[in-house]
Amino acid sequence: MRVKCIRGIVLVALLVVAGVGAYAQNSKAADAIRAADQQWEKAAAASDLAKTVSFCQPDGSVLPPNAPIATGTAAIRQMFAGYFALPKVSISWTAVTAEAAKSGDLGYSRGTYRFSFNDASGKPVVDTGKYVTVWHKQADGSWKVVADIFNSDLPAK
Amino acid sequence: MRVKCIRGIVLVALLVVAGVGAYAQNSKAADAIRAADQQWEKAAAASDLAKTVSFCQPDGSVLPPNAPIATGTAAIRQMFAGYFALPKVSISWTAVTAEAAKSGDLGYSRGTYRFSFNDASGKPVVDTGKYVTVWHKQADGSWKVVADIFNSDLPAK
Repeated sequence: MRVKCIRGIVLVALLVVAGVGAYAQNSKAADAIRAADQQWEKAAAASDLAKTVSFCQPDGSVLPPNAPIATGTAAIRQMFAGYFALPKVSISWTAVTAEAAKSGDLGYSRGTYRFSFNDASGKPVVDTGKYVTVWHKQADGSWKVVADIFNSDLPAK
Repeated sequence: MRVKCIRGIVLVALLVVAGVGAYAQNSKAADAIRAADQQWEKAAAASDLAKTVSFCQPDGSVLPPNAPIATGTAAIRQMFAGYFALPKVSISWTAVTAEAAKSGDLGYSRGTYRFSFNDASGKPVVDTGKYVTVWHKQADGSWKVVADIFNSDLPAK
């Protein structure tokens, strides 16, 4: 029994040390960022333009590949509207990691995405890639996107 | 004189309010992130592989376009070595913004880059784009990259 207890204590100590080393942050805030990331993904997967845009700070930026940065609500709306208008568009992503600062006011998520649509000839185009999203906690406790950037894993054509 | 003082106080108050609204974070840590971003840029601009890699956490990730994520020192070194080996390579970037959490342990920089090299036929290839870098403050007070991602502003070919 004593041996088991000591094993348990050592295991907990190791986990704490590992946690501090890798992610010396706020796990509650990190969980909230991961949840916001998932909710944002649901809105985008549903091509819900108003809801998708609402996850971004009014002065936030989305940085899409092969296009200029979109800063502010109007530019971000226009950018997402372009994606959502593609024939048979399908957008999904999954966070691989989420971290937040100790103060719980700033953090980020990092993950992978899948994006597909039909081109002008009706041929499916499929892209897979990765992203980083920086989140700010708002005065009302919600988390919003201050910067979101993504790029393809596939070789340039 | 009194009017000048009042003007000064009002100006400072407005700047504080604007600062709190836009960036309710730690400006000292944000300055340190901006400085680290500049130092990292100098190392990359000089194609100094060891120094460039040293700015990344041992478990950090660089997410280059049109390639898989590079996580950990060995993968990050291999990625930068590939860029630095390009003929007549030139890499530069400038931070547009830098922010840090109130706790001063996590933050990010966002900016623009210019990247050029000569292709196999000796023809110059020039790319311009944008990036987001997430930084962690280390135990020794230095800042290191936990995630760096970038993409082109130019239309896909």
